[in-house]
Amino acid sequence: MSTKDSSRRHRVVVIGSGFGGLFATQRLKRAAVDVTLIARTTHHLFQPLLYQVATGILSEGEIAPSTREVLARQRNARVLLGEVTRIDVKARTVTHEYVGRETVTPYDSLVVAAGAGQSYFGNDQFARHAPGMKSIDDALELRGRIFGSFELAELASTPAEIERLMTFVVVGAGPTGVEMAGQIAELAHRTLSRDFRRIDPRDARIILLDAAPQILGSFGEKLGGRARRRLERMGVEVRLGAKVVDVDLTGIDIEHTDGTRERIESVCKVWAAGVSASPLAAHLAEQTGAGLDRAGRVEVLPDLTLPDHPEIFVVGDMMALDSLPGVAQVAIQGGRYAADQIVRRLAGEAPQRSFRYVDKGSMATISRFSAVASIGKARFSGFFAWLLWLGIHLLYIIGFKHRITTLLHWAISFVGRGRAERVVTQQQVFARTAIEDLGDRFRPELPRVPGDRADEQSQPPPD
Amino acid sequence: MSTKDSSRRHRVVVIGSGFGGLFATQRLKRAAVDVTLIARTTHHLFQPLLYQVATGILSEGEIAPSTREVLARQRNARVLLGEVTRIDVKARTVTHEYVGRETVTPYDSLVVAAGAGQSYFGNDQFARHAPGMKSIDDALELRGRIFGSFELAELASTPAEIERLMTFVVVGAGPTGVEMAGQIAELAHRTLSRDFRRIDPRDARIILLDAAPQILGSFGEKLGGRARRRLERMGVEVRLGAKVVDVDLTGIDIEHTDGTRERIESVCKVWAAGVSASPLAAHLAEQTGAGLDRAGRVEVLPDLTLPDHPEIFVVGDMMALDSLPGVAQVAIQGGRYAADQIVRRLAGEAPQRSFRYVDKGSMATISRFSAVASIGKARFSGFFAWLLWLGIHLLYIIGFKHRITTLLHWAISFVGRGRAERVVTQQQVFARTAIEDLGDRFRPELPRVPGDRADEQSQPPPD
Repeated sequence: MSTKDSSRRHRVVVIGSGFGGLFATQRLKRAAVDVTLIARTTHHLFQPLLYQVATGILSEGEIAPSTREVLARQRNARVLLGEVTRIDVKARTVTHEYVGRETVTPYDSLVVAAGAGQSYFGNDQFARHAPGMKSIDDALELRGRIFGSFELAELASTPAEIERLMTFVVVGAGPTGVEMAGQIAELAHRTLSRDFRRIDPRDARIILLDAAPQILGSFGEKLGGRARRRLERMGVEVRLGAKVVDVDLTGIDIEHTDGTRERIESVCKVWAAGVSASPLAAHLAEQTGAGLDRAGRVEVLPDLTLPDHPEIFVVGDMMALDSLPGVAQVAIQGGRYAADQIVRRLAGEAPQRSFRYVDKGSMATISRFSAVASIGKARFSGFFAWLLWLGIHLLYIIGFKHRITTLLHWAISFVGRGRAERVVTQQQVFARTAIEDLGDRFRPELPRVPGDRADEQSQPPPD
Repeated sequence: MSTKDSSRRHRVVVIGSGFGGLFATQRLKRAAVDVTLIARTTHHLFQPLLYQVATGILSEGEIAPSTREVLARQRNARVLLGEVTRIDVKARTVTHEYVGRETVTPYDSLVVAAGAGQSYFGNDQFARHAPGMKSIDDALELRGRIFGSFELAELASTPAEIERLMTFVVVGAGPTGVEMAGQIAELAHRTLSRDFRRIDPRDARIILLDAAPQILGSFGEKLGGRARRRLERMGVEVRLGAKVVDVDLTGIDIEHTDGTRERIESVCKVWAAGVSASPLAAHLAEQTGAGLDRAGRVEVLPDLTLPDHPEIFVVGDMMALDSLPGVAQVAIQGGRYAADQIVRRLAGEAPQRSFRYVDKGSMATISRFSAVASIGKARFSGFFAWLLWLGIHLLYIIGFKHRITTLLHWAISFVGRGRAERVVTQQQVFARTAIEDLGDRFRPELPRVPGDRADEQSQPPPD
């Protein structure tokens, strides 16, 4: 890369292709800077719709446009694939790695938007049995587990086994958890209702757990209550004040507020509770003396920079400021603000006033035709809120083509009962292991290694 | 299952959810029989379009509708997920397995349509470095390798490395190989042309290899010649009379007809040469004394049954009869014929005359707007042939919804230059290993085991 580094233009390095990183990069389109976007995946993930990939409504491509494609026409921006392993704030370099290749990229200004991942509150061993909902891989993994559970139930022999396979537990009653629970319910009660012969998918139990006393806390009691009643009408069991104490292959153990414990037998569990910021947050705090909050987010100054490092901006889910929520809008506005600050400095203009977040409201779908929305002081629920959700999400999905096919796939699942994207690949290794040795009857399988896969690939598939 | 087995209705077991198995099952819709379709995947794969998934045009769901969904309304049919491990022709039972669970299903009539897989002509070790094109997993694997090669080239430091990463070799110049080569060329020359900064994807070399003296042999010299000229105009290097003698991580060794050898440095190789029938073919031959041909296909009687086993039909790619080709139409017509025979017997009617294949012609796309088609004595090429291809494939894609979204994705890639489905998941383990330790510079990575994946999942992703 060294050839490029000798360039006289101001070098901006952006870490992350999520909302913060992508919108910061796009905001710099007309600036006299060279932007290098370093991301771990080739796509920009439209996270709010991840649950629709997990439940077979949308394809990966529809919520994850190629970052290169989005930025193809922005000549001052380049995309490098890689995972950031080190940021040297003194030398002003970012070290990143892709399949073992290490690259060092220097910067004059740095925008760190590496986001946050799932948090298991110190119980990382839960992850294997209850995947999170943070990446395309998570979503495909869960798709494999959800559909796979019904397939296995169709083959199961004992009622206990069938029940365990047809009980779905979603941990965490925030927007993601509510949306997952609602979609699994629609999948079981509508989409799959006619697909099986021995089992009736409508018998499936969908349980939504949260330690809090209400669901959708951030939406206030009124909307939370409405959402809860709507979910219950759909057949979702909402269990509040329920703290998860253990998760294993075949079930989950919870503790109620009165201290009593309960075991729920369930093969397919989804973890939608808690996030923790990218380790890069701690990595930066360590070097700059900035503080970290409980979620591991780095505390930034009012202009989103770090102490004594006006050239380093931290935005989005890994930034801690005025306890702003980890939502797309905070990341988008933060990314744009950082880009504007960089431009102003280069132009020698006075810096903008402190970052001010404009809350455009928040919404969550509960089922087709039903959502809750909180915009300013206004509260909406039901069909109108759902229309709001539909319109706003369509607008935000990046790329015209995706908007159209997405609209069609939605028509299929909202108007019809179908799901266009039900494919489960053999590559859901994780899903396989999760249902592999239920009880003695199931033969444990060795983890697959590339060698095995090669051998396997060269064997003719029976179908 | 034993409850069901006591049923008095004639029990038909169909193995495989490909063209042969699915069409046989659907043909039995109104028959007074119980049909059990046993398949290894949850989807029916529309194999002729697999290359479009591999090159990012279509999503998995668009070419692989859920078999259950397709058969949901056929009340006399049930679908069981599993891999057939044994067929006992004396006891008339099929033993199948799903994630370790073994199930034994008895039959009165059996339709075996387990298809064929890639053949490496005894060099199965090639598979790891040159995946085939037989399953959704293969296609996603290749998608990961194709796009991943460009990503790595953008980071590579030496010209030799960049060239090796931007050289794509397709082995086998049948329809699949021709279509892959054509699509990789369009991807490099059109889709990605503006997406990179250090490399120019238009410099990519696409090499199509075959040991035969012409491409698309089954289409005759004239069409083969036209297809070849068209490919060459698109920048595809067609190398004929080239026999593959070795394949490794970083290249492929070929032997020319004159005995001279050549090494082609290439990271991304595609294997589209040769098929071998499902091992179930040999398994059946062994028990019934039927013969096997070179491709491991079992020789059937003129009515598609096995010697002394009128209750066992073998159809599609794993059946050998009058050297019929392994194409969708042979499987579809064979499956329907078998279903009709079963119905006639139950009705006590005289059996149909021997199976007669009606050749509806064959076609291959070379690029958008260009194809070759051979229908009866007629030969078409160019735009008209492409329109034929478009119409016929749209008709065959099962499920209205898929037809519409597919048409849109096609519009995107044919009219525009985009690709709606470019997502590569971390689950392309295989793709990762393929580009992992190129030269010393690359650190070898341990094969992933579920445990690792769990740990990894619990770490926040940088983007």
